[in-house]
Amino acid sequence: MSDTRATRGTASDAAPAAGKRADARRNVEAIVQAATRLLAADPDASVNDIAKAAGVGRVTLYGHFDSRTTLVREVADRAIRHTDLVLSGENFDGDAREALGRLLEMTWHLTHEFGALVVAATGTLPPEEIRRVHEEPAARVRMLLERGRAAGQFSDSVPIEWQVSLIQAILHAASASVQRSEITADDAPGLVRTTVLAALAG
Amino acid sequence: MSDTRATRGTASDAAPAAGKRADARRNVEAIVQAATRLLAADPDASVNDIAKAAGVGRVTLYGHFDSRTTLVREVADRAIRHTDLVLSGENFDGDAREALGRLLEMTWHLTHEFGALVVAATGTLPPEEIRRVHEEPAARVRMLLERGRAAGQFSDSVPIEWQVSLIQAILHAASASVQRSEITADDAPGLVRTTVLAALAG
Repeated sequence: MSDTRATRGTASDAAPAAGKRADARRNVEAIVQAATRLLAADPDASVNDIAKAAGVGRVTLYGHFDSRTTLVREVADRAIRHTDLVLSGENFDGDAREALGRLLEMTWHLTHEFGALVVAATGTLPPEEIRRVHEEPAARVRMLLERGRAAGQFSDSVPIEWQVSLIQAILHAASASVQRSEITADDAPGLVRTTVLAALAG
Repeated sequence: MSDTRATRGTASDAAPAAGKRADARRNVEAIVQAATRLLAADPDASVNDIAKAAGVGRVTLYGHFDSRTTLVREVADRAIRHTDLVLSGENFDGDAREALGRLLEMTWHLTHEFGALVVAATGTLPPEEIRRVHEEPAARVRMLLERGRAAGQFSDSVPIEWQVSLIQAILHAASASVQRSEITADDAPGLVRTTVLAALAG
């Protein structure tokens, strides 16, 4: 953490250290929320625009996040954790094709809330970072793939890791296609489901 | 073009301007060739490493390419143009499934020559740049998709642009999976062919 002075805050003279820490927490939250909102609308949203929307100065922002990449990483991490929290409360027992289809549609809707953030993250973070933030969602997909491969519903003549990567690639391709207006946001979850289930048969 | 002095060259006093231009051309070629070779092995190869391998100084390199992104864009453009030149000499008439399968395997082999460059480009260039450099290869794929959709070999209940994006996503996912050693380079072309043809049926 840097010693950059918070530009907003209510620190009293009585407890300046605690006040500064509270200011810092509020600033970090304001920055992350502004970044989440702006990157959802425009994957190329700048650090300047984000600082402005958060009501903090550039120096304060850079005091908390040393680069745009660090900020995008934090926003992507939180988005994934939020998605994961929602999905962890769902039941994906039963028929593997049906369960995977449902998981894909839910993942789409949860991801779609974050709009262009997927495009921003893919264009900003190196591939291994993108991979890392997807480890928990990938574990859930892998479990369903194992069940479906054992039941003969998905091809088991290709490596399961290839099927995991394929599903992630299809979800991201759909986000990018919606951003380019090639497909509509309404059609996307159905297209993802149909395409993934067809691809897994091969 | 900057007026950065070339660090290698044979310019004579008799024709300094022409000599400088020839030096600049040689330097650009040396830089692009070194970048192509280094990025094929390591998607995170640095500008310093590339300048060193090209036998030029950092200042000379930045005189020709104002950022690492500009250099990666040039290398990716050339790789795509090379691939496109080879494919334009091929005959993709006849059965659309067979022709698309052949096009995919050829594209894989041509792309694989460039190793981790695909990973480097995807991690460096914004999505719309990645899209732009793929316009000509996409046109060839679109032609085969139209033929196969008309013949009832590929689903025509999904937008053709979605199928084009899907094929590009599957090819790039395969490159990334080979880089992560999840699948072998030998298995990749067959996996790409099988997966794409299965996905297009859905």
